[in-house]
Amino acid sequence: MVMSSVVNTYPLSSYTFGTKEPKMEKDTSVADRLARMKVNYMKEGMRTSVEAILLVQEHNHPHILLLQIGNTFCKLPGGRLKPGENEIEGLKRKLSSKLGANSPGLQPNWQVGECVAVWWRPNFETVMYPYCPPHITKPKECKKLFIVHLSEREYFAVPKNLKLLAVPLFELYDNVQRYGPVISTIPQQLSRFQFNMIHS
Amino acid sequence: MVMSSVVNTYPLSSYTFGTKEPKMEKDTSVADRLARMKVNYMKEGMRTSVEAILLVQEHNHPHILLLQIGNTFCKLPGGRLKPGENEIEGLKRKLSSKLGANSPGLQPNWQVGECVAVWWRPNFETVMYPYCPPHITKPKECKKLFIVHLSEREYFAVPKNLKLLAVPLFELYDNVQRYGPVISTIPQQLSRFQFNMIHS
Repeated sequence: MVMSSVVNTYPLSSYTFGTKEPKMEKDTSVADRLARMKVNYMKEGMRTSVEAILLVQEHNHPHILLLQIGNTFCKLPGGRLKPGENEIEGLKRKLSSKLGANSPGLQPNWQVGECVAVWWRPNFETVMYPYCPPHITKPKECKKLFIVHLSEREYFAVPKNLKLLAVPLFELYDNVQRYGPVISTIPQQLSRFQFNMIHS
Repeated sequence: MVMSSVVNTYPLSSYTFGTKEPKMEKDTSVADRLARMKVNYMKEGMRTSVEAILLVQEHNHPHILLLQIGNTFCKLPGGRLKPGENEIEGLKRKLSSKLGANSPGLQPNWQVGECVAVWWRPNFETVMYPYCPPHITKPKECKKLFIVHLSEREYFAVPKNLKLLAVPLFELYDNVQRYGPVISTIPQQLSRFQFNMIHS
């Protein structure tokens, strides 16, 4: 019953990064975002979002790829599923939209692996919890984080208005101020995996 | 490849709690503990410890069983493996020593499940990390946390000098001040599991 999970990680330098047209955020403020969430909830019910943990290595330490918007805000690549959409297919669709080249032949081979965390939004507010709080019968969002295994060589096309950063686990750990509660506890979620650091 | 893991949790009231002889802590201070660790490291190399996450439910919310020593300090049941000891067998041995009745026929059926977190102690200090920090080639301790599934009815014998508490996830979450970094992030580690709350 005990599973030992191994994740192969390749050096950052084995990947190629280009750019593509900007992908603007749909909302320009937190208030706008929560208002849009409310409208969508009325139409479609609970929002389900899926996000990817993409791993690379540098100096034998795992790093996670984060998209930076502006000078400070970082997020995992991913997004909202369409109503009824399969989680795995939806995550691949979102990853290709955020980080894939426009040519279908150049799409990375997204190998969606294990779900490592689930976060719940009880109300139309920014706060989320790693459980559905007691007495909340109608949560507004469920966000799932998956490990997405990368092949040894891939081409990523990064929207021009965003930056793609490789952030080491030791930078994320215990850094809720900079990365927020979801991203700053990724090191704990990943601690049970064995990283097979491949040097090329 | 995506695993959906279900954990059955039974009401706290379906378990019976008795007492047994005190199990004193081997050390009376943090300094003593670190000194003993150093001596053991010289003799046996890296310490491996295993701890159990035992789950029950109350009011449809998962609770974790913690051992309280004195008025404030809480820990998970478990302990140090003997050199070369199997993790699963070692955890069962430790659980029976901490929480099992003295009569072998009354031992709970410890069903050791998935490893949910691994913590590393790089030096003979109290601080641990959910990864082995870069440049640390000889970590001093590796601590593994496992889910241990409980049957519907069990008898626990709690050492007289300790208290066994059922603490809800919402109390642990974001409460590093009270529970420390290892226990306070258990809610995040468990978020990917689906809890099947059984009412009896």
